[in-house]
Parts: sequence; structure tokens; C-alpha cells
Amino acid sequence: MGKGEQTRDAILERAIRLASEVGLEGVTIGRLADALDLSKSGLFAHFESKEALQVETLDRAAQRFSEVVVRPALAAPRGEPRLRALFERWLRWPRAVPQPGGCIFVQASVELDDRPGPARDRLVELQREWFDTLARAVRGARDEGQLRADVDAQQFAFELYGVMLSSHHHARLLHDRSADERARRAFERLLDDARPPRR
Amino acid sequence: MGKGEQTRDAILERAIRLASEVGLEGVTIGRLADALDLSKSGLFAHFESKEALQVETLDRAAQRFSEVVVRPALAAPRGEPRLRALFERWLRWPRAVPQPGGCIFVQASVELDDRPGPARDRLVELQREWFDTLARAVRGARDEGQLRADVDAQQFAFELYGVMLSSHHHARLLHDRSADERARRAFERLLDDARPPRR
Repeated sequence: MGKGEQTRDAILERAIRLASEVGLEGVTIGRLADALDLSKSGLFAHFESKEALQVETLDRAAQRFSEVVVRPALAAPRGEPRLRALFERWLRWPRAVPQPGGCIFVQASVELDDRPGPARDRLVELQREWFDTLARAVRGARDEGQLRADVDAQQFAFELYGVMLSSHHHARLLHDRSADERARRAFERLLDDARPPRR
Repeated sequence: MGKGEQTRDAILERAIRLASEVGLEGVTIGRLADALDLSKSGLFAHFESKEALQVETLDRAAQRFSEVVVRPALAAPRGEPRLRALFERWLRWPRAVPQPGGCIFVQASVELDDRPGPARDRLVELQREWFDTLARAVRGARDEGQLRADVDAQQFAFELYGVMLSSHHHARLLHDRSADERARRAFERLLDDARPPRR
């Protein structure tokens, strides 16, 4: 990895933390230059605009998410073990890649939902990819006979997303220490409801 | 209601819409003065600081929430009917009191979670009150024998909050038209799981 690439990497890692704390709108070239003690012109050499920087910050976050959540979970056997691995790693994601203000995607979702533009478009793509990954894992567990043949994978993913959002809300806003535990109980209920009927 | 009170009312209604669109940090005296075609000094006569304005915006939103969600739902018979009324009215809340950028409380939660201060403190109080209302409705349904004697009301409220957040996310960010329908299915699953075992 060349020096330019290393700098770019350091900038984007910092941008993820910043977005977590102050939102994606707060990720500006000026603010990042300050935080990293670089010149603004130096940053402009890496990112041509604030918007390009925001899109690349989302992309880098997605790449890190893939590294610490998706790829290791895909190493687990298909079916319920893989679904469980995705869930557990997802739950730990805002700590695995330090996001002191909470998950960058939760932050960006609320921020960008009514702001058309390239950052919103990219976020929507990334979210759809993630829902697809979740739904695929659910169908994997169905194909292994661990979940019902008629399980609605998209509904499962919808509800699981809600569990995560509620856990995030309880932990971040309400400082509720049982947030992870409640999320796990909700996940078990989701699984139990989706199991095939006992013979 | 005197003229001063009417103006104050109009300001706060506008502040709710603004907070929904640009976040509570965007609710400033200058911006509101522009939107309402009032002088900044006129607005300062009503709210002494940006922070006071933010707290009052949250309070007004909570009062409107109580008017269109909580109070009418409490008119339904205790137990499952009341719980259902709370859920249905909650689902319609961002339309019942126009919030073009989505629920002000979802917006404010993500925004304020790492910003200590009076606005955050007030939001936490309001959220706790709402969770208490939900948990009380769940216990009401338990006392009526419609839900299991050992139903965990707080866990129920935690999961129901997640259903709402996921629905909000799907509708707002992903423009998913089935968001309400998915929320209803998730709610029915929550209820079904909490029912007493059949004899």
C-alpha cells in the first residue's frame, strides 16, 4: 500500500468516526483536515468534493462492515449457525469498528432520508445489499430445514432490523445496559416462531 | 387563547415540522423567524434561547402525540383493544401531525444521543414515559387474561419500538410501501407469542 493510499485510508477511518458522532453532514474536508492535522488542499487532492467524501465514507464503512460482520459470518456453516453469526457480529459492529456516536448507518439513514443526492442513493444501495444478505441467510436456514418452508425471509429481515434499531436506541439514548440482552431474546423469539412445526 | 399564545403555538407547530425535516439542531430562532415571517426579536420574546426553544419543541411534540395517539387510545377498553389502538395511532403519528421528514422523536433520538444537555434530558424523560405507557397497556392486556401471566411488558415494549423503527426506516429511506403492512404483521406476531397457552 503506497503512502497516498495510507493517507486516504487514515482519512476515511477518521471520517467514519466523525460521521458516527456528528452525522454525515458534519464530515467536511475542513473538519477532517483539522482532526487529522492535514492541510485542506492536501485533503482536496484525495476527495474532489464534500459529496464525494461522504459517498466514500459510506463505502469505506460498508467495506469495514463486510470485513468484521459479513465475511467472518459467511465462514460459519450455512443455515442457522450463519444467521446467528451475522446477528452476533452485527450487534457488536459499532464497537468492532469504533463508532463512538453509534452505528454510522443508523445515523446516516435518519439524516439522509429526505436529502436526495449521491450519498442517499449509495446508502439505499448498501442497505438493500444488507437486507439481501440477511434474507439469503434466512433462506439458507430454511433450506437446511431449520426454519419453516414458508418462512417470509424479507419479513424476518424487517423484524430483525427493528430489533437492532431498538437495541441501538436503548443503548445509545437511554443508556440501557440490557439492550444487547433484549436484542438476543427478541432474536430467539424470531427464530422460534420461524421453526418448522414439531411432528 | 390570547394573541401571544396563538403566536407561540404557531411557532411551535412550525418548529415540529422543521425538526422533522432538518433535525432539532436546525430549529433555530433565525430559521423559524424566516419561515414564519416574524422578526428575530419577536421570537426572542417567546423563547429566551435556542436550547429553550428545542426543549419546548419536544414538549409540544409530546403534547400533540398525547392528543392524537395516547388519549384517544386510552378511550378504548383496557387490554388488547387499547394496546391495538395505541399501535395503530402510533403508526399514523407522523401523518396525523404533519412531520414531512419523519417522526421528530426518531430524528431527535439519533441526533441527541451523544449531545448532553437539557434537550437530551427532556427527550429521555419523554421516551421513558412513552415506554411506561406501552408497558402499562401490555400489563392491562395481561390482567384481562388476553396475554400470558408471565409476559415481559418491557421486552414487549422494546420489540414493539423496534417494529416501529424498522417501519419508519423502510418507509422513509427505502420508500417501501409495504412498511405499514410489515409492521402490522410483526405486531400480530408479538401478540400471538404473548398469548396464554391454549387449554
